[in-house]
Amino acid sequence: MIHPLHSPSRLSVTLSELARLLNAELEGDAELKVYRVAPIHEARNGDLTFLSNSHYRSQLASCTASAVIINKLDKDCTSLAKLVVSDSYAAFRQVALYFSPVIPVTPGISPQAYIHPAAKIDAGAQIDAFSYIGQDARVGTGTVIEAFAAIGDGAVVGKDCRIGSHCLIGHYCNIGDRTIINGGAIIGGDGFGLVPEQGEWKKIPQMGRVVIGSDVEIGANTTIDRGTLSDTIIGNGVKLDNLIQIGHNVVIGEHTAIAGCVGIAGSTKIGRHCTIGGAAMIHGHIDICDGAQISAATAITKSIIKPGVYTSIMPFQEHETWRRNAVNLRHLNHMNEKIKDLEQKLMAMERKDK
Amino acid sequence: MIHPLHSPSRLSVTLSELARLLNAELEGDAELKVYRVAPIHEARNGDLTFLSNSHYRSQLASCTASAVIINKLDKDCTSLAKLVVSDSYAAFRQVALYFSPVIPVTPGISPQAYIHPAAKIDAGAQIDAFSYIGQDARVGTGTVIEAFAAIGDGAVVGKDCRIGSHCLIGHYCNIGDRTIINGGAIIGGDGFGLVPEQGEWKKIPQMGRVVIGSDVEIGANTTIDRGTLSDTIIGNGVKLDNLIQIGHNVVIGEHTAIAGCVGIAGSTKIGRHCTIGGAAMIHGHIDICDGAQISAATAITKSIIKPGVYTSIMPFQEHETWRRNAVNLRHLNHMNEKIKDLEQKLMAMERKDK
Amino acid sequence: MIHPLHSPSRLSVTLSELARLLNAELEGDAELKVYRVAPIHEARNGDLTFLSNSHYRSQLASCTASAVIINKLDKDCTSLAKLVVSDSYAAFRQVALYFSPVIPVTPGISPQAYIHPAAKIDAGAQIDAFSYIGQDARVGTGTVIEAFAAIGDGAVVGKDCRIGSHCLIGHYCNIGDRTIINGGAIIGGDGFGLVPEQGEWKKIPQMGRVVIGSDVEIGANTTIDRGTLSDTIIGNGVKLDNLIQIGHNVVIGEHTAIAGCVGIAGSTKIGRHCTIGGAAMIHGHIDICDGAQISAATAITKSIIKPGVYTSIMPFQEHETWRRNAVNLRHLNHMNEKIKDLEQKLMAMERKDK
Repeated sequence: MIHPLHSPSRLSVTLSELARLLNAELEGDAELKVYRVAPIHEARNGDLTFLSNSHYRSQLASCTASAVIINKLDKDCTSLAKLVVSDSYAAFRQVALYFSPVIPVTPGISPQAYIHPAAKIDAGAQIDAFSYIGQDARVGTGTVIEAFAAIGDGAVVGKDCRIGSHCLIGHYCNIGDRTIINGGAIIGGDGFGLVPEQGEWKKIPQMGRVVIGSDVEIGANTTIDRGTLSDTIIGNGVKLDNLIQIGHNVVIGEHTAIAGCVGIAGSTKIGRHCTIGGAAMIHGHIDICDGAQISAATAITKSIIKPGVYTSIMPFQEHETWRRNAVNLRHLNHMNEKIKDLEQKLMAMERKDK
Repeated sequence: MIHPLHSPSRLSVTLSELARLLNAELEGDAELKVYRVAPIHEARNGDLTFLSNSHYRSQLASCTASAVIINKLDKDCTSLAKLVVSDSYAAFRQVALYFSPVIPVTPGISPQAYIHPAAKIDAGAQIDAFSYIGQDARVGTGTVIEAFAAIGDGAVVGKDCRIGSHCLIGHYCNIGDRTIINGGAIIGGDGFGLVPEQGEWKKIPQMGRVVIGSDVEIGANTTIDRGTLSDTIIGNGVKLDNLIQIGHNVVIGEHTAIAGCVGIAGSTKIGRHCTIGGAAMIHGHIDICDGAQISAATAITKSIIKPGVYTSIMPFQEHETWRRNAVNLRHLNHMNEKIKDLEQKLMAMERKDK
Repeated sequence: MIHPLHSPSRLSVTLSELARLLNAELEGDAELKVYRVAPIHEARNGDLTFLSNSHYRSQLASCTASAVIINKLDKDCTSLAKLVVSDSYAAFRQVALYFSPVIPVTPGISPQAYIHPAAKIDAGAQIDAFSYIGQDARVGTGTVIEAFAAIGDGAVVGKDCRIGSHCLIGHYCNIGDRTIINGGAIIGGDGFGLVPEQGEWKKIPQMGRVVIGSDVEIGANTTIDRGTLSDTIIGNGVKLDNLIQIGHNVVIGEHTAIAGCVGIAGSTKIGRHCTIGGAAMIHGHIDICDGAQISAATAITKSIIKPGVYTSIMPFQEHETWRRNAVNLRHLNHMNEKIKDLEQKLMAMERKDK
């Protein structure tokens, strides 16, 4: 594999070829070649850059890129050669795919892998050194199992997946097709199911699976617990960032995206097409409807039944200012009582005045 | 290992046998057989279900389970065959244990494990392929060390433990008996001990251990740092969920349960029989008394000396409403001053009026 | 390796030797020997302890340590033999280094490691069993690669580093010298780069690297994503605690220290010499200036341009008190309007009164 930023002989493409690829309007030299796509603050001669947020227009002024992908409404802010499109970020993605290194799958099983004799591995799968495939586990064609990944007994991984280093796909869990699991994710650990008995916690056996759909991506060191009786379910097209905790029996609807450090407690149902910002915390046993958008660092303590944006961030301040304000947070109820009291007294005085 | 949800010939048990097991009052056909325990929304003919929260009574109406475990106070809400008990959740656990797959320990050391010649492994322990047992490490009988688990030099793991895939038990750490450590947990990493010296951070050597008691469960990808001079201590019966961070020198008392994504900073002492909700954050160098209950998403910034429930959640709202309210959070002190000012002026006017 | 707390023949050192080492003023028997450094509450005869915070003076009263390292201003609070210094915490660190076990590097490659034929490993490096060194990867002299650590294709690890168990250093990532990476850290996972297209999320290829400087320490199970086009950069001397998430394209300036459970979203720049408290959350695409100090559990939602301490903690209370106060948080704007209304009415009455 050759890394694009370090390759001695880089790819090149002319602006006219790119205009065709992106269905873009070209302003500038059609035969100009670019060799790389780069962010505005790094792009130099030979590079293609892109402006997706008008907010950064001013950065283009000093940019020495050979050309820029730009939205129609921003096109007059630069004299660089330009590829004018309707969605510059989506166009950027296409160009990034063009320049990105292809990581080929090399079918075969490393002699340094552990494969249970009763595992079923498709001949088109790539099983790296120090990977572990358990009893009755199945791995589909085009799938790569990286070093130190473990596929538990009876687990099923579909086609064209990438199971990253140090991942665990627990026993009997199920992964669809084209799903990417980044390093260190633990899928199918025991859920946190406890019953108090005479002052001690007794473990409830966790017998369900984790069932993950197709075209899912799961971030590094994210954890998804198996269900207690039924399954924990991650729908098709769901995207999870790093260090997310998904409790047992949770269901996440299709095409929902969740940023890093989010925790979702057990038995909660998240709808389809939701977005959840980083470090949000979602209580257990609640329902979040389709299309809900939860802001970063927000605590969701009850069900949401209407699409919209929901927030509970405490605004930050300089510490001394915060301290003076925060002390009042302990007495808001008292402040409110005082206001009511003032209102009544004032009303009484006004009445007397008349 | 046969997964109960996928077993071709499932277990079965009659209601009369279950009534005996649970010490339950049986209403319905004593000879009726059930094959599985399932949640209300999934239970069908042949399944046993349970109602542990009166809130979900209505769900029983359409449930086609063969029988239900139910508390006395809820028993009249359904015409299903029923096992009437005083604590339906504890009874459910007993039934779940009955139906749960037994994962037998297969004593022996995989030829694909790394075992230091000076390690001491009991003949009754199961050491899987790609596990690593360091110098002078000890592993007790009935304990399973899963693939990619590493037991560091001089570490001790007791009897009947399960050390999950990708766990690290760092050098000289100590684990009691019947303790379960889920995948990816890192026990005994270096604590975050730093001294500033001329604008740089200098590392303080971390020489203590992590000492974990018996009957503890630790969640996936949770991290527990070794102590600086003395040990980080996790008491007997403590239950930790996934993605929890426990700093160096922390002491957690017996039978305390902590939900996912919690962070506990260094040198803090948590009492016995505490519960800490998900994503709570506990400052360092403080003491939390026995029996304290800390709500999810709550920041504990000073010691707690009285049992009770403690909370600091900022309530969530629709974003626009939140925005209008949140702006005032930056001026609470000013609001409070205005109220005091109004009170004084009003008092002055009242005095004048008399 | 001999653990100092468990060694049969411990080191010993006289107080006069220590006074020389620490450049301390000695009060007490110069020939007295100490065998261990221990915290005040554990120190006994034969131990050296230290008092770094005047707050804990009272604990010294009942301490039976042989001697204490103490700051000048605290020296009269104890009759123990003492080493008087100007910075007792820094002095403690020196003593701890003296007593801490030296973990020697044993150069050589375990026959149970996987080494790609095109990897370049210095003869002075220690490559443990079950470690994985990819194609064209390079490892410098004095560096230890522990069991289950993976060094990806083309990745470079400098001199005298320690790459802990279960770490991944992703393809083409770069680590400086004397950097310590604790167990389970995933360096160079794919960033969370997505474009919405017709209701689905499309992945943007992540082509940058993670570049980590020298003298850095990274905590257990921390994750750092590779950049999209350019690199994610961690400056020299940066210290990261456990379970931290660093998004793609983030830049962290030299000698910044970040406590556990922090999340930093993509493309944010953190300055030099900052400190960030545990469980803080930093938005993406913002700039934090040099020397900023962010409190624990604080959400930073916009850029910080002035050094100082910034906080957004919601104070905790007993649950019932919190509940009564928190309900007002949903109506702060209304409370503010009422105050304004009262002010106007009062002013009108005062005017009439005149």
